[in-house]
Amino acid sequence: MNIYGNHITKLIEELSRLPGIGAKSAARLAFHIVDMPPERAAGLANAILDAKNKVIYCQTCSTITDISPCKICDNIKRDTTTIMVVEDPRDLGAYERTGEYRGLYHVLQGAISPMAGITPDHLRIKELVQRVAKGNIKEIILATNPNVEGEATAMYIGKLLKDMVTVTRIAHGVPIGGDLEYVDQITLARALEGRREVFV
Amino acid sequence: MNIYGNHITKLIEELSRLPGIGAKSAARLAFHIVDMPPERAAGLANAILDAKNKVIYCQTCSTITDISPCKICDNIKRDTTTIMVVEDPRDLGAYERTGEYRGLYHVLQGAISPMAGITPDHLRIKELVQRVAKGNIKEIILATNPNVEGEATAMYIGKLLKDMVTVTRIAHGVPIGGDLEYVDQITLARALEGRREVFV
Repeated sequence: MNIYGNHITKLIEELSRLPGIGAKSAARLAFHIVDMPPERAAGLANAILDAKNKVIYCQTCSTITDISPCKICDNIKRDTTTIMVVEDPRDLGAYERTGEYRGLYHVLQGAISPMAGITPDHLRIKELVQRVAKGNIKEIILATNPNVEGEATAMYIGKLLKDMVTVTRIAHGVPIGGDLEYVDQITLARALEGRREVFV
Repeated sequence: MNIYGNHITKLIEELSRLPGIGAKSAARLAFHIVDMPPERAAGLANAILDAKNKVIYCQTCSTITDISPCKICDNIKRDTTTIMVVEDPRDLGAYERTGEYRGLYHVLQGAISPMAGITPDHLRIKELVQRVAKGNIKEIILATNPNVEGEATAMYIGKLLKDMVTVTRIAHGVPIGGDLEYVDQITLARALEGRREVFV
């Protein structure tokens, strides 16, 4: 089908290969792009090329960054004795937005998943062990996702590092603002298991 | 907030200005683009630039196209005595996909909407009148959208052309595959009004 000509058809095709964008959304976006001022379309195209070609991985924590070491690893105000291990730069972003964490990070670039063929060798686990082996680290906080792959990864790294450093896991429990009625059984069980005395 | 560096932040910003893409989808797309093979990211960027810079409007029917006159206007197998008037190239696309229409089109580039400040002068109505005035046209089919703006536009064009040519409007009625229970009252009323004898 080539009703709109090759250029639009090609753009719709490229856009519909992006995750979460179906054929109809791709067409809507393509027509929007055609109607954009030329400098905005050029801005979008350049942003894509810059993000692809200029973004690098931090040599220390493996997050994506413009400069290596990244701003967090290079920030002298951060607590360099604590490393939070996350799967993805977006998880790092989520914790940064809380404003509650002042330590460093280590981005694994994924989680162990035998089903998807991702073994520990595919992740930045070796680099984490090297950072810990250099000494100076007091605590490793495992903040991988609370799903099967994330738990397996946390378990694996925990076993690997437990004799070198204190290893902790972020708490599982009921999310703030939720309604107990709608929380799944496993989370409820974990929340009960992890209960703490109110006035200590 | 600039957790991921300037390049990613800029890309997220550009993507979230697109219609239907919020901050979270934009971040997901941006990270996907960073993980793409370089040639695919370049392909996407070029498709955007080509669609913006090389797409033109057909001098005859005003649809978007690579070459003017467009493939439909230039197709000697089409019935050149009938013109279907649509608001948008996507509506043209929708009718082309039916495979049921063999005439020509005229794309208005919108619909009359006093609320949005769109008057008949903003649309390609003058060009439509010129096409009809050249003679040779037997029927104008008004296929603007079945909403307030589309109906008003159809009414306006109908009055303008009714003394020059036969003007028809696509039928309103219950959509195929639907359930009467869920069809709105206005559509049901229109379907009743437009009823036709079964065995003629």
